[in-house]
Amino acid sequence: MTTGPIEGSVKKWSAAPGHDDIVVPYREIALHPSAKEEPVRVYDTSGPYTDTNVEIDVAKGLSKPRAPWVAKRGFRKVDVRRRVKPEDNGYVSEAQAVPSCPAEHEVFDGQDAQYVTQYEFARAGIVTEEMIYIAHRENACRAEMAEGAQERRADGEDFGAEIPAFITPEFVRDEVARGRAVIPANINHPEIEPVIIGRNFLVKVNANIGNSAVTSSAAEEVEKLVWAIRWGGDTVMDLSTGRNIHNIRDWIMRNSPVPIGTVPLYQALEKVGGVPEKLTWEVFRDTLIEQAEQGVDYFTIHAGVRLQYIPLTAKRTTGIVSRGGSIMASWCLAHHRESFLYEHFEEICDIMRRYDITFSLGDGLRPGSIADANDAAQFAELETLGELTKIAWAKGCQVMIEGPGHVPMHKIKVNMTKQLAECGEAPFYTLGPLTTDIAPGYDHITSGIGAAMIGWFGTAMLCYVTPKEHLGLPDRSDVKTGVITYRIAAHAADLAKGHPAAQLRDDAISRARFEFRWEDQFNLALDPDTARSFHDETLPKEAHKTAHFCSMCGPKFCSMKISHDIRRESERKAGMEKMSETFQGHGAQIYVPQAEVVK
Amino acid sequence: MTTGPIEGSVKKWSAAPGHDDIVVPYREIALHPSAKEEPVRVYDTSGPYTDTNVEIDVAKGLSKPRAPWVAKRGFRKVDVRRRVKPEDNGYVSEAQAVPSCPAEHEVFDGQDAQYVTQYEFARAGIVTEEMIYIAHRENACRAEMAEGAQERRADGEDFGAEIPAFITPEFVRDEVARGRAVIPANINHPEIEPVIIGRNFLVKVNANIGNSAVTSSAAEEVEKLVWAIRWGGDTVMDLSTGRNIHNIRDWIMRNSPVPIGTVPLYQALEKVGGVPEKLTWEVFRDTLIEQAEQGVDYFTIHAGVRLQYIPLTAKRTTGIVSRGGSIMASWCLAHHRESFLYEHFEEICDIMRRYDITFSLGDGLRPGSIADANDAAQFAELETLGELTKIAWAKGCQVMIEGPGHVPMHKIKVNMTKQLAECGEAPFYTLGPLTTDIAPGYDHITSGIGAAMIGWFGTAMLCYVTPKEHLGLPDRSDVKTGVITYRIAAHAADLAKGHPAAQLRDDAISRARFEFRWEDQFNLALDPDTARSFHDETLPKEAHKTAHFCSMCGPKFCSMKISHDIRRESERKAGMEKMSETFQGHGAQIYVPQAEVVK
Repeated sequence: MTTGPIEGSVKKWSAAPGHDDIVVPYREIALHPSAKEEPVRVYDTSGPYTDTNVEIDVAKGLSKPRAPWVAKRGFRKVDVRRRVKPEDNGYVSEAQAVPSCPAEHEVFDGQDAQYVTQYEFARAGIVTEEMIYIAHRENACRAEMAEGAQERRADGEDFGAEIPAFITPEFVRDEVARGRAVIPANINHPEIEPVIIGRNFLVKVNANIGNSAVTSSAAEEVEKLVWAIRWGGDTVMDLSTGRNIHNIRDWIMRNSPVPIGTVPLYQALEKVGGVPEKLTWEVFRDTLIEQAEQGVDYFTIHAGVRLQYIPLTAKRTTGIVSRGGSIMASWCLAHHRESFLYEHFEEICDIMRRYDITFSLGDGLRPGSIADANDAAQFAELETLGELTKIAWAKGCQVMIEGPGHVPMHKIKVNMTKQLAECGEAPFYTLGPLTTDIAPGYDHITSGIGAAMIGWFGTAMLCYVTPKEHLGLPDRSDVKTGVITYRIAAHAADLAKGHPAAQLRDDAISRARFEFRWEDQFNLALDPDTARSFHDETLPKEAHKTAHFCSMCGPKFCSMKISHDIRRESERKAGMEKMSETFQGHGAQIYVPQAEVVK
Repeated sequence: MTTGPIEGSVKKWSAAPGHDDIVVPYREIALHPSAKEEPVRVYDTSGPYTDTNVEIDVAKGLSKPRAPWVAKRGFRKVDVRRRVKPEDNGYVSEAQAVPSCPAEHEVFDGQDAQYVTQYEFARAGIVTEEMIYIAHRENACRAEMAEGAQERRADGEDFGAEIPAFITPEFVRDEVARGRAVIPANINHPEIEPVIIGRNFLVKVNANIGNSAVTSSAAEEVEKLVWAIRWGGDTVMDLSTGRNIHNIRDWIMRNSPVPIGTVPLYQALEKVGGVPEKLTWEVFRDTLIEQAEQGVDYFTIHAGVRLQYIPLTAKRTTGIVSRGGSIMASWCLAHHRESFLYEHFEEICDIMRRYDITFSLGDGLRPGSIADANDAAQFAELETLGELTKIAWAKGCQVMIEGPGHVPMHKIKVNMTKQLAECGEAPFYTLGPLTTDIAPGYDHITSGIGAAMIGWFGTAMLCYVTPKEHLGLPDRSDVKTGVITYRIAAHAADLAKGHPAAQLRDDAISRARFEFRWEDQFNLALDPDTARSFHDETLPKEAHKTAHFCSMCGPKFCSMKISHDIRRESERKAGMEKMSETFQGHGAQIYVPQAEVVK
């Protein structure tokens, strides 16, 4: 398991004011004493794995910070849990079976007569512990650093979002109550560090993981999760299929500090031998409960793929490219009837409410090519997702909406505008979008462009795309590249929206760069390891880390070096008129021999 | 030297209608016979190096397609060229000297009484061979493929650009005459394949190369050029400094089929021992002539860094980050006088006109951090660049304008709008911009986001940024990553602007993807080698290249496979009502065993 702090930082915890039992994580990056600056605090997604004081044992699972909060709510303990069936694990043979996770796990479900979901609590005016947690967590990187924040705030263009300078628990509650934000947090997933997804909060990033045919160990699967959140995954979707998925999911849930999402349809399809038309409501329903009891925090439900929309895809360049969408379209056509997800949507709501599983309404008809962007099929489905959002809210559920896909830049904005209008401002959660189809191997970049833009326009969470998109399964390096690329997109969006605290990190790293504090520059980077190793390729010596130039231009051409000389002179003498002679008199030195710099 | 075709394509040449002597390059990508589609033609920047029929000998240099066109114009042959001086090569010792390039090279200069520059010819209503060449070259990927182009055109948002469905030589002339486009083409660089830079043409990409301390051979330097243009560099800037630069530049010029840009100030500074205040107009002027005779096509001239603007940078987070800008600022302060570039600007114009060297007016005060974006210093300089543009035009010169830098997304648009307004629509040529400062090691991505956006808004050429930006010197792999990232940005911009032919390639690759024509998908990619190798990591067997699924989802979950089944059925039976029973009767097969697929 990858553990230990991210290079150059310390994992810390901070109790919410007045709540010693509500302790949020952050990373603290100390700067060189010469900076004379406070350490920089950054939002941290990595969970206890980066805390050197925590001992990790995947068989025991993580500690359960939410357990006491959930316990207070008086949910019924489920004594007779759903029995694990052979098909849950893809009829795996005993020899190849992954054992279930031995970590302790109690199961609860909510009843009709009580508030269960964060949405219900919020509507009732009740601030939950999760909301207090989130307020403090979102503030962690600004509360004590937000001087001048209002000034910077004015700088952004937020397209109607309303990001406050300081997040209060009451603000969190209000946003959840309006349906503008979700807190994916199954009552059976007490291990998580709550996260909020909404356009008035920091833009979030989702990373997908999935089993591969060759993987045999649960630890390897947990490691994928740990790796993805180390670099900045706020949530993780487990898209595993095939053998052992129930048991592997168990290991993931018990060891995940981030909300986990799944597409239950995938497992349901496995249970019926991979033949879409054999799917039934009963199998699907049973799968929902199976995963609900394990603690899955959000479900992608492709209930917007209606029978009548399928002909709209017939003339598309790339048909239906969503797996869930194509499975449901196949089912609808085979039976020539309306989707069972659509017809049973209220029952799905009732189940998901009982555990507070957040809806992620799937965009089964998203465009898979530039040619198909924003077409009738895509927008017809989006309108249905809007209709379903209102039903889910009426049932007390939390909802977010999935979005495309492949969309050229000039067609991105209308996706956001239409989503906000159709879905009553429910959070948007998009895959990319990819802004061109012609760069397989670089689709983290084609999509990172679209992700940054749609994040700016108001998308609350960006689902990452790795360099292997369209080509193969991402390896460890691809996952990291995908996550970092999406953290760039999310941060660029936060900056452009005028998030009050976003620019603090840019300013800190820029000052470090200007002052040649190389170590600070590395440590403040999204990926300190890569920044350091790139630097060291050309100038590996420790001495160069304090040099007042770098390998790009060398000392003679270093613009920052010259800038410093200019500034130093201009500070020494008041008034520009005296500057010329002074500069000359001082030898007009623009560089000093390295020996002198390094001492 | 890297030669041979880009995988999966053939380098071809096409004569402009009615001009057998004007032959433009393109790449042709043949598709699998099952596609029943014409080959796809794409714009090609790679020069003769990808043509298997051309023998490359760097000592002889490339052939000179422009020589007869230039010869007809009756320029004076310079019999007594500027003598190469020891300082031109950084006082290199004989032992370490790179010899000059033995390739034949005649030198011409234009006189006052004749038209010399493309701008002058254009203003006089004369269509040059370069303009005919460019019209045919820009059309190569659309003339014979532009069915439905007008329809797609309507789809874009071009912010006032006027991209025609078909490019005529007269259109090229008119754009050059209006100053809205430039054709960087020194009369002493007969080896180039002319390129146009303007917002009504395909968005172009510049790659920077430079010598490194360890390099000793001219062939290595030429290889850097060849590598950068192989992947899509439309122009290349040679930013070399130090020893041997005159001679190495000779090798580059004689072997470059793309326009070469330089920053003459760098070499001038070397000649005065790296001490800015020792710079003189005379040394600078001599350097211009030195490089002009060699054939450099465009010069970055930092004439907008005026004395009065320097105090505006004093409170910046990152001061002056342009090398040229900091050198000039240092000179101005040391002498406390106006920049000699600004004061001698008309003389610079006279020199550059004589060889038709295009101005690239440098943005010496560009922001080097998010904090400094769009500040008073930056915009003051931009206004001066607008003033200088009009002077250069009056002198008959071609002009483009360099732009930032580090700019958050919400501040990008105004850069473009202001540049168009201040500089009379002269082409904008931007470095990125980087949309956040916090990801050293990934600045090709932070800047690729900004580049795609500003390209969409109207920037004519995008200067690449590599992953090593801020950290070190790019190696071969970084250069390729930088160029491909910027080709993505340029293409995403072309798509969003509604360029009539841009989407043809997206459509072709998307059809290939949907029809599981794996080889076609690889070959149509910007980087076929990477696409193929990523695919082969998971599914290396040849058989899998014809499989109707891929490693991401496998056959059972392949949405495209299911889509095909749906479409096949829907095509077989007219009317949705019959579809259900038929699908069922057909066994509702959503996958076939692999053996069957592969046969």
